[in-house]
Amino acid sequence: MGPGPSNVAPSVLKAMAAPLIGHLDPRFVELMDEVKAMLRVALETKNEMVFPVSGTGSAGMEFCFVNLIEPGDEVIVGVNGVFGTRMCDVAERCGARVTKVESPWGRIIEPQQIAEALKKTPKPKLIAIVHAETSTGALTPVEEISKLAHDAGAMLLLDTVTSLGGCPVKVDEWKVDALYSGTQKCLSCPPGLSPVSLSPRAMAVATTRKKKVQSWYLDVNLLASYWGQERVYHHTAPITMNYALHEGLRLALEEGLDKRFERHRKNHLALKSALETMGIQYSAQEGHRLWQLNAITVPEGVDEMAVRKKMLNDYSIEIGAGLGPLKGKIWRIGLMGETSSLENVKTFLKAFGEILNSLGRKVDVKAALAAAK
Amino acid sequence: MGPGPSNVAPSVLKAMAAPLIGHLDPRFVELMDEVKAMLRVALETKNEMVFPVSGTGSAGMEFCFVNLIEPGDEVIVGVNGVFGTRMCDVAERCGARVTKVESPWGRIIEPQQIAEALKKTPKPKLIAIVHAETSTGALTPVEEISKLAHDAGAMLLLDTVTSLGGCPVKVDEWKVDALYSGTQKCLSCPPGLSPVSLSPRAMAVATTRKKKVQSWYLDVNLLASYWGQERVYHHTAPITMNYALHEGLRLALEEGLDKRFERHRKNHLALKSALETMGIQYSAQEGHRLWQLNAITVPEGVDEMAVRKKMLNDYSIEIGAGLGPLKGKIWRIGLMGETSSLENVKTFLKAFGEILNSLGRKVDVKAALAAAK
Repeated sequence: MGPGPSNVAPSVLKAMAAPLIGHLDPRFVELMDEVKAMLRVALETKNEMVFPVSGTGSAGMEFCFVNLIEPGDEVIVGVNGVFGTRMCDVAERCGARVTKVESPWGRIIEPQQIAEALKKTPKPKLIAIVHAETSTGALTPVEEISKLAHDAGAMLLLDTVTSLGGCPVKVDEWKVDALYSGTQKCLSCPPGLSPVSLSPRAMAVATTRKKKVQSWYLDVNLLASYWGQERVYHHTAPITMNYALHEGLRLALEEGLDKRFERHRKNHLALKSALETMGIQYSAQEGHRLWQLNAITVPEGVDEMAVRKKMLNDYSIEIGAGLGPLKGKIWRIGLMGETSSLENVKTFLKAFGEILNSLGRKVDVKAALAAAK
Repeated sequence: MGPGPSNVAPSVLKAMAAPLIGHLDPRFVELMDEVKAMLRVALETKNEMVFPVSGTGSAGMEFCFVNLIEPGDEVIVGVNGVFGTRMCDVAERCGARVTKVESPWGRIIEPQQIAEALKKTPKPKLIAIVHAETSTGALTPVEEISKLAHDAGAMLLLDTVTSLGGCPVKVDEWKVDALYSGTQKCLSCPPGLSPVSLSPRAMAVATTRKKKVQSWYLDVNLLASYWGQERVYHHTAPITMNYALHEGLRLALEEGLDKRFERHRKNHLALKSALETMGIQYSAQEGHRLWQLNAITVPEGVDEMAVRKKMLNDYSIEIGAGLGPLKGKIWRIGLMGETSSLENVKTFLKAFGEILNSLGRKVDVKAALAAAK
């Protein structure tokens, strides 16, 4: 119940115990096609270029920047947590000139902030924002920022590592040009792959660059020949991880995206109602709180780390700590994919309540459990 | 029985079906330490900086170059197959000035060739060679080339993707400064991780660079804080793949490295003796043939692809095709890790002999099987 990896469904674990086949085996090629087709459904896109990068979410982030950015390009990055900060670092390593648009950690990036930045940097090549900030629990709305980006002639890049599979991600409707995600959050597969998507416009940029992509491993010009129709050997795809992603996506689509999102929403609300009876506050901006990552404020006088350690050692429940400026100030409770269940919410509440009581706080665990619905 | 992924032991498959734990969980941290310790034994090194990169072998290749090379650096690369060719591309994307030392595919890089190159490029920063060329089946001896590199003040970089776990790789004795490997060959784990090792000298180079490493994902300065003692979050490690590598290494060390190498050698000799009775020739340079990757010449008049397809479709045996200049000219038969058994050699021979006979060649399958020992 931390910020990921989330729990993995038994059928996904079972899929990984299947014997290996070759990365050019016709059966594996079929599986690749099915993974791409299912990713398109999950991402609500018709983009041809949709596939999982053979690395974790941060490799997907790097994939987007190395393919789209050339030295000297202007980039605007929304920074309201760890991952916006990371995007600036990655972009700068590609030679980008980065304009940071900063919000306090826990708040969203407001369209108005992007509009202001565009006054100083009117023609950026790319505007990058984090959809669901895993480090703070805030969900930044995409549509208005997308409009601002496209009106300025820029591409829109979206980090959906924690959003995909847990709340709507509408690539085509929102006109997202480049996107990366992860498998270990709301898709509930192990970490190791990063689903990515590039719009036709982004592909045109990547395929008509002046300079070679600085990463051979992440060069979409080479990867397109393996994941496309030609099936030219590039690198040895992580076979087993693709088995897992295939089964994870199948489960998500079998459940139905809308039902899955509703499940995430309901369990978030159940947790929230219960925590409120304990006097626990959510730390992210009201109206923009993630269902899948519940960031809550550590009550004054409570030892943040002691609670987390007790949760793990005495109850076998992992919850996340705050990072950066939120270190020691928040806990992050993941209700992602398989982990998002009312049973888990109640198991958490019972453990958490008992620990708070053992520290001398007086919380009514029964009342909290009754409120969790 | 292709060039990898090889077959995976049942206990490795089972290890991957274990539930996920967090990438900062104390139990996972223990597992990371054990993976590093076992890798040091397998690589015969005392290097502190030994860990698996969260990507496949090619990510490991890129890891070595991005960390050690800065724009304008001189590099000498031995090119005798696909992977030497790839190293040149990767090095150039890092801004290296590359001197290629070329041998015909199937032959090794001779020390004399490196000595010649050093006359024109006397002070390279790095000399890079492929130990076991998966695309050709040739094993280049390391020691003399290492001496030439160090006498010239250069670091030695070694690709051991196909050698590690199948034949000796002596990092300290051979004074290898940088090394990458893969999990899906003779370690018989699924693809998805790349064990790497940097000597103290290489670490000193990586940590005192003028320019930031161009890849955030592969920057050893950041990765060292996660895989070292500080355990600072960098990216979410592929938990399940590390479970697999842990069990794969445990099995390799339980068998014993010497016994494991001897098993690879014996099964190679069994296959070779049998193929000779069929009049089939090995294509790689005599005296330098890999035990784990048997490259054999397609007999004149035989349709290379038809044989491979029959092997796969009628016998469920994958063997590899030739690549580049060897396309259509060789087959590559992997006897790697779990796959290296006399039973597999015999299963292959029976299928292969039957197919050759069905194509009108007259081979004595019984005699071949009798010779396989």
